[in-house]
Amino acid sequence: MQKRGYFITSEGPEGAGKTTVMNLLGDKLKEEGYDVVMTREPGGIMISEKIRNIILDNEHIMMESRTEALLYAAARRQHLVEKVQPAIDAGKIVICDRFIDSSLAYQGFARGIGVQEILAINKFAIGDTMPDKTILFDIEPSVGLARINAHKNREKNRLDVESLMFHEKVREGYLSLADQYPERIEVIDASCSVETVLEEVYKVIKSQLEIIR
Amino acid sequence: MQKRGYFITSEGPEGAGKTTVMNLLGDKLKEEGYDVVMTREPGGIMISEKIRNIILDNEHIMMESRTEALLYAAARRQHLVEKVQPAIDAGKIVICDRFIDSSLAYQGFARGIGVQEILAINKFAIGDTMPDKTILFDIEPSVGLARINAHKNREKNRLDVESLMFHEKVREGYLSLADQYPERIEVIDASCSVETVLEEVYKVIKSQLEIIR
Ligand SMILES: Nc1ncnc2c1ncn2[C@@H]1O[C@H](COP(=O)(O)OP(=O)(O)O)[C@@H](O)[C@H]1O
Ligand SMILES: Nc1ncnc2c1ncn2[C@@H]1O[C@H](COP(=O)(O)OP(=O)(O)O)[C@@H](O)[C@H]1O
Ligand SMILES: [Mg+2]
Ligand SMILES: [Mg+2]
Repeated sequence: MQKRGYFITSEGPEGAGKTTVMNLLGDKLKEEGYDVVMTREPGGIMISEKIRNIILDNEHIMMESRTEALLYAAARRQHLVEKVQPAIDAGKIVICDRFIDSSLAYQGFARGIGVQEILAINKFAIGDTMPDKTILFDIEPSVGLARINAHKNREKNRLDVESLMFHEKVREGYLSLADQYPERIEVIDASCSVETVLEEVYKVIKSQLEIIR
Repeated sequence: MQKRGYFITSEGPEGAGKTTVMNLLGDKLKEEGYDVVMTREPGGIMISEKIRNIILDNEHIMMESRTEALLYAAARRQHLVEKVQPAIDAGKIVICDRFIDSSLAYQGFARGIGVQEILAINKFAIGDTMPDKTILFDIEPSVGLARINAHKNREKNRLDVESLMFHEKVREGYLSLADQYPERIEVIDASCSVETVLEEVYKVIKSQLEIIR
């Protein structure tokens, strides 16, 4: 039997630094000789891309939140089967930008469908393939949004209050997930500098990789 | 509060006579003054049609059975929200060709994903809107398939054995569902003449409608 790989996911709001930091982490691990696959849903999987197109289509104003949740789970399933699972089975380190916890925090918690219900359909989708380690980039939503807006011609005060409240709920959801899965989810203070965050994340992941190798 | 309508579904293999008989039933009930909506998934709902196109696309040979099951559940949800539920809430009789039991029998039972698992994602999709009454058109699969093939330039013995065995499993699945939900699912011998089957179905439905009105 082949040596199983290692499955890492990054979570947190937009602007938390997931892409920036995890790309740097991936590069670092590759330099050290690890076989790393960077991915994100829908991950270039044709079927998952088409499902995502349905979710994002502006014509679909009638789309109900549970329809959307089922479509996300379907896209996740196919991406897992075609890309994530084969890479893990081949012994690789898979780093996936967002995964099940995004659905739990956004749709289950913040949108109010219920975490247990979203968990159930996602367990149907992913089976036993839970991430080995999840890095939660924790940050004040206003700080994350400000980072994004810094690159747009848009003033910070244009963030409307409702959207900020929604993001507060997402954060609360993520933190309650971290309480629920303390072994799996590592909360990182994402408000620090890129270097500091990277160092923290690297320490966490490296210690895990040393345990399994 | 408005008077709630009545939700009927028809189930059974291809060629069992669902469309033929339920259309006649619908006409009969309309003549009697009932407000009847005939539908079937994806029911002309744009989002559900697009989901169905993904399921049926021949390009998608990689589609995994759980992805498919989630997509069916998503299409079902949207059809329910946009068409079935509003009609029920408006007091109408909704007759839907295939619904949750098709997923349970085909994917849960015959394809082997598991009835409980398929039930869970479908309960997520439909919530409390289970059919008030389900007519199960029970028939030897070979008889149903022969009825369909009678209209094609194709000999009966061209039915291959594997497909027949699959349909035997579907039938077994349906019958075990009827055992599990004896109040809801009415098993009808669909091998009789159209007139006889219609009479049976009419009797079942009419007695229910008289109870609720
Ligand atoms: N720790 C950090 N401190 C300041 N700015 C950051 C930090 N991490 C990322 N950024 C910047 O914030 C923006 C969003 O980062 P990104 O990695 O795309 O976040 P995410 O993928 O979580 O949405 C980018 O412009 C990035 O350069
Ligand atoms: N009770 C019956 N006896 C004989 N033929 C039937 C009967 N019911 C339907 N048929 C014929 O069998 C074929 C399939 O019927 P259909 O109503 O389309 O089945 P389903 O919708 O269950 O697939 C049609 O050609 C129909 O005329
Ligand atoms: Mg990103
Ligand atoms: Mg039919």
